[in-house]
Amino acid sequence: MLKLFYTPGTCSLASHIALEEAGVEYETRRIDFSKGEQTTPEYLAINPKGRVPALVTERGTLTETPAVLAYIAQSFPEARLAPLNEPFEFARLQSFLSYLCSTVHVAHAHARRAARWADDPAAHEAMKAKVPKNMTDCFALIEGSMFAGPFVMGEDYSIADPYLFTIAGWLEADGVDPSQFPKILDHRNRMGERPAVTRVLAVVQA
Amino acid sequence: MLKLFYTPGTCSLASHIALEEAGVEYETRRIDFSKGEQTTPEYLAINPKGRVPALVTERGTLTETPAVLAYIAQSFPEARLAPLNEPFEFARLQSFLSYLCSTVHVAHAHARRAARWADDPAAHEAMKAKVPKNMTDCFALIEGSMFAGPFVMGEDYSIADPYLFTIAGWLEADGVDPSQFPKILDHRNRMGERPAVTRVLAVVQA
Repeated sequence: MLKLFYTPGTCSLASHIALEEAGVEYETRRIDFSKGEQTTPEYLAINPKGRVPALVTERGTLTETPAVLAYIAQSFPEARLAPLNEPFEFARLQSFLSYLCSTVHVAHAHARRAARWADDPAAHEAMKAKVPKNMTDCFALIEGSMFAGPFVMGEDYSIADPYLFTIAGWLEADGVDPSQFPKILDHRNRMGERPAVTRVLAVVQA
Repeated sequence: MLKLFYTPGTCSLASHIALEEAGVEYETRRIDFSKGEQTTPEYLAINPKGRVPALVTERGTLTETPAVLAYIAQSFPEARLAPLNEPFEFARLQSFLSYLCSTVHVAHAHARRAARWADDPAAHEAMKAKVPKNMTDCFALIEGSMFAGPFVMGEDYSIADPYLFTIAGWLEADGVDPSQFPKILDHRNRMGERPAVTRVLAVVQA
């Protein structure tokens, strides 16, 4: 059975929701960052990066949100979570996932994880100070030219939706008023009402 | 015909090589960052992110290296650039692409693009100072647990190979001695001898 390693408040939420939306059997294991569980030898043997998500499959372990999401979509095509056989549409979806992981999540990470990129505490403060502007710029681009509506890619729900929902959930903590982005805020509200999402949040927030 | 917007010295090299390896017809257009061409209204109409690569297709424009690479692999399956129909192997490949774009390329970008994440010049210097360590850590992980050999994913050449080749080409400029990573250095040398790579480099370095 698939096994997802997750941590509340992190991007693992996207993969967790995608598994639930796919309607497949899976088990979960919480990794508590506040106890440093992500850097224990046991967890590093599962994911040498010391991050979440990690999805253990019968073939091996997968990491990185875009890869885990693509695996779920491709393994359970009946759930229709991605336009798997349309190269342009699938690439457009991958482009959105890549933008979230390489630009938006990275912009967010400079608030609490600035020590990854500099050792000087003053530099950490300088990075944290720019997070609201960078997250605002990212979400303005998504709102203005990437979000098709009613779902991220258009008429069809896809793996991009739980990923956007996850990162959009960080806006207030990053000092950004989400009401500037009415399409994204409406999407976040609608996502929060989906049965799969409420089931996952009940587990994660427990 | 496909049209690739590229800039020498950037990650667009990976998509450029993949197009050449696929053996398809395409045209290119150089975007000169030193002249600020990436932020002209004409280019922002093509790619609102003001970055490269951008691949113009008959269906629309694609951005983000992992998406462009996946599009090339899926559009030209006869080139066998990805295990398209094996969900685990395809996800393993996507995981590698995601790691390069969201962690390794980001680590590198803190040397010359630190202004993205802070306004204070002292913070830029602090970020630049940590680039050699972060790039070393990333490549140690690739060398030690991700690179299968002889190609990135194992026996078969894939879209991961030009992407690793591209970023491994930045090591010296990032203050990292590549001889610490003999598998990656050997791969870089072998990649540099591939006819498709030499043809692309002749164009890019002209």
